Formats: sequence, C-alpha cells, structure tokens
Amino acid sequence: MKLSRQEIDNDLAGLQGWHHDEQAQAIRRTFVFRDFNAAFGFMTRVALAAETADHHPEWSNVWNKVEIALTTHSAGGITAKDMGLARKIDAIAGQLPAR
Amino acid sequence: MKLSRQEIDNDLAGLQGWHHDEQAQAIRRTFVFRDFNAAFGFMTRVALAAETADHHPEWSNVWNKVEIALTTHSAGGITAKDMGLARKIDAIAGQLPAR
Repeated sequence: MKLSRQEIDNDLAGLQGWHHDEQAQAIRRTFVFRDFNAAFGFMTRVALAAETADHHPEWSNVWNKVEIALTTHSAGGITAKDMGLARKIDAIAGQLPAR
Repeated sequence: MKLSRQEIDNDLAGLQGWHHDEQAQAIRRTFVFRDFNAAFGFMTRVALAAETADHHPEWSNVWNKVEIALTTHSAGGITAKDMGLARKIDAIAGQLPAR
C-alpha cells in the first residue's frame, strides 16, 4: 500500500541520505565508492538482496558512482517494500569501506 | 584516439543494435532479458569484461532491461576501446538465452 507523505518523511528520517523525489514517486540515494570494482561489488550484494525480497531497484552506474531509485510500480508510489530495501541497501553500504 | 564519424559508422555496421548518440558522444544499446536475474547475470559478465579491459560502461538497469552507453572520457569521444567493449558485450549477450 502506498505510503502517505507523512509516513515517507517519518521513514526517511530513519535512513541515511535518501530523499523523496515527488515527481518520480520514488526515494533516491547516490553512493560513491573507491572505484568500479567496489561499486559493482556493492551492486552485486544489493542485487542479491533485491532478488531475495523480490523487489528491485532502478539504478545506474558510472565508474565509482551508483544512483538508486526505489518505487513500487504496482502501487503507483512508495511503499514499505521500498523502505525495507533502502534499509538493506544502507546496511550493505555500511559494511563496505568508504571511498 | 577519438574516432571520426566515418570510422564510427563503419564500426557500428559490424555490431548489432548499437547506435551513435552524437550529443552524448557515445554509442548506446538497450538489452532486454527474461527477468532481473537474467539482466543482472548479464551485467555481472559485462562488469568482469570491463574490469579486464579497464574500460567501463555507463549503464542503467530497470528490472529486465539494461541500457548501456560507451564513451571514452579521456579522449572526449568514442574510441576503439568503446568498439572493443561493445563487441565483447554483444558476444556475452549472444551466449545468453533470449527473452
């Protein structure tokens, strides 16, 4: 079920660096790593988490940078699935060395 | 060294489905797979080829779709490195089951 703006704001307050893209009805975060190797290693771990959750990111990668957008197309907006995946992504990023 | 438009056209004629994005000074192709699992499997193989070649794609993924742009920033345009990576990407895609 689509979250209200209030619910989205509350959830984002508990996350790190995600913002609400109202036009795209998505939450977004950009991650920067040391190099491509580190960035793609991160993406691989996120891909496994996404596949397990059966909920997948919309994302792009240029060299050491990964931009992620999360939305739930079937609900036409942001749901608890997006927040759950965002938390997993933050946990994965937190286990990797900083840039 | 940056390729001329003529050289780009010649090289693209030998590839499958790539087009020349003159504004971005890049070559682009979109790949569609059965599902996310297949798309990310493809990306993983491309990532390994890119790392080996030390030349990396700019790419995005949404579920079963992968959009790839190749350009050589250090040369300010499209070079033989991009064409070489495009050929490797086509070879990888050709080994995977079609959608």
